[in-house]
Amino acid sequence: MTRLTYEQAGVDYGTLDSFKRACQRHAAQTAGELAKSGYREVPGVRGESAYLVEMADAFLAHVEEGLGTKNLVADAMRQLTGEDYYQAIGIDTVATIVNDLVTLGAMPISVAMHAAVGDSSWFSDAERAEALAEGFAQGCRRAGAVWGGGETPALKGLVCPGTIVLAGSAIGQIRPKSNRIVGELQDGDAIVLLGSSGVHTNGLTLCRAVAERLPDGYLSRLSDGRPYGQALLDPSVIYVDFVRECQRQGVMLRYTSHITGHGWRKLMRLEEPFVYVIDDPRVQCQPPIFEFIHQSAALDLTEAYATFNMGAGFAAYVRPADADRCVTAAEQSGYSAWRAGRVIKQGPRKAVEIPSLNIVFEGETLRVR
Amino acid sequence: MTRLTYEQAGVDYGTLDSFKRACQRHAAQTAGELAKSGYREVPGVRGESAYLVEMADAFLAHVEEGLGTKNLVADAMRQLTGEDYYQAIGIDTVATIVNDLVTLGAMPISVAMHAAVGDSSWFSDAERAEALAEGFAQGCRRAGAVWGGGETPALKGLVCPGTIVLAGSAIGQIRPKSNRIVGELQDGDAIVLLGSSGVHTNGLTLCRAVAERLPDGYLSRLSDGRPYGQALLDPSVIYVDFVRECQRQGVMLRYTSHITGHGWRKLMRLEEPFVYVIDDPRVQCQPPIFEFIHQSAALDLTEAYATFNMGAGFAAYVRPADADRCVTAAEQSGYSAWRAGRVIKQGPRKAVEIPSLNIVFEGETLRVR
Repeated sequence: MTRLTYEQAGVDYGTLDSFKRACQRHAAQTAGELAKSGYREVPGVRGESAYLVEMADAFLAHVEEGLGTKNLVADAMRQLTGEDYYQAIGIDTVATIVNDLVTLGAMPISVAMHAAVGDSSWFSDAERAEALAEGFAQGCRRAGAVWGGGETPALKGLVCPGTIVLAGSAIGQIRPKSNRIVGELQDGDAIVLLGSSGVHTNGLTLCRAVAERLPDGYLSRLSDGRPYGQALLDPSVIYVDFVRECQRQGVMLRYTSHITGHGWRKLMRLEEPFVYVIDDPRVQCQPPIFEFIHQSAALDLTEAYATFNMGAGFAAYVRPADADRCVTAAEQSGYSAWRAGRVIKQGPRKAVEIPSLNIVFEGETLRVR
Repeated sequence: MTRLTYEQAGVDYGTLDSFKRACQRHAAQTAGELAKSGYREVPGVRGESAYLVEMADAFLAHVEEGLGTKNLVADAMRQLTGEDYYQAIGIDTVATIVNDLVTLGAMPISVAMHAAVGDSSWFSDAERAEALAEGFAQGCRRAGAVWGGGETPALKGLVCPGTIVLAGSAIGQIRPKSNRIVGELQDGDAIVLLGSSGVHTNGLTLCRAVAERLPDGYLSRLSDGRPYGQALLDPSVIYVDFVRECQRQGVMLRYTSHITGHGWRKLMRLEEPFVYVIDDPRVQCQPPIFEFIHQSAALDLTEAYATFNMGAGFAAYVRPADADRCVTAAEQSGYSAWRAGRVIKQGPRKAVEIPSLNIVFEGETLRVR
């Protein structure tokens, strides 16, 4: 079977990222406007997963994020099985927003929904609309945030008929200011990974391309007997409680990364160059969905780790002495977690290395700033 | 020529609003989550144009809003004339967000962009991408807010090829808390209207349907000689400075309304029933674009006022004694403004009346809560 790559599946991160950088250039020039509110921008925050405003006694955090194309899988599964998965989709939408917010130590206060449909008939399916609203509320509760409004436009000619574009935003705060995760790593720091429930919300374009190549499509069975499409739709893990618990227990997180687009390349998200060595063999115990995609798409492992979270949705970087406490805090707040590797200083080199899998990602393969 | 109505043009507010209400029902049940942050929801804020969280010494405001379909007009004009209008589109996107935010007296702190394309090739037109980013930054500056990040996904299968869905969010604050616009009207209060630059960002579906029926389409000339499509793309007025100036001068705004979808029916946005009588004849001096749409679409005036801002993009409600100061504050901060009418208490009746045009909108024609 011919191998599938992410670019063949229709996502060109090169072009996307160049627009992103144009936006960041213009956005950076507006920082002075904060003086009108009496605040200032946090130096170095541009390019992080959340934006931070420095106030006198707290940092205010702002994130805008989108679900991506995961709901197309829900639509396909509805057609095939009659089951509705929009409650999970609602949770996913919140997850993708708040998991970015917490990377800098901000706790979500308020989340808002943006749900744009191609025609208002989307909402005529009252059961599905109700499930989506219910799931979004559930996601907010898991995040400890209020659902504070949103927008639900019908955009004929912009959104494909019969579909919905789901996105939203969150406001968060870091209070006291000492809870801010500043991103100062040192040679020897430990990497703790937290388990994911599956693909979460990234790599779905590729997942859909895989389904198209399979004789049974989304109904193909994984090694655990579940249909592929159903496993794809397991709602994302929301990592807010992990960061909250670390703050409560005084476990200092030196940096964290929400592992989304670019897969494990996101481990080297910090601007300062380090080499991230993942040497815990448990990295190979992926949830069945990843093994399935790997085999069905004939996707080589390097490409898989460059695209998917591969079973680890969130990374925390701590001092070696804090690693065990960090894992414990994660477990106590309901997550699976393991000490997976270490941070090494190798001069100007930035890379992620997984020696047991012969995988190396050099710094230039990740451009998010 | 057959008359066009908004529902014929493909927007069914009935279905949309029922989903909105389902969201509000579920969202309301998450209010208790604010206790985790040490805050509480502002009673009665659900259904207003912005969401408010009450903190010890300020209110935090959150808005998520979208541009709608206005960029389809920019795309059509690009094809016809070769000119790019995405700088205006960028300003519009910010305007639609922050004009909602200020209705409760919140000053914007941070604005984030959500720009979803059907395929990443949208961004290959570097000039257009640059114009959009430049316009968004300009909008933020007009609003006195920092552009604090955003998201730019490629959503194949969700967003129509060659198009872009533009939306975003804003964080604002009301500080001191006494600046909050609480929405307490009284019989006899004055209505001050602020001028718009044209259609702003609502009613565009209908505007596009009008273009399709005209022999010269978007190139048809208005009474002032400008092409219809060009006039449609005049960037929206951003009303932040008006509210800021009223706060600075101590002009108490008892309520305000951002006149968007539902046109002048939005004048009766406040939950408590009042009758809003617009008796200033200047209401009939619409910008040429409205006269043109009215005539070209054979849209009766009632339908036009039920859909468009008709030259007034923002309404402020003040004590009669403050009306002149309010108009002056508007003019001093760069807006056209006029005392247009008065608020009357008629028991449980809610309505908007424009006697000189024989227009009456009863309360049941506006359902936004």
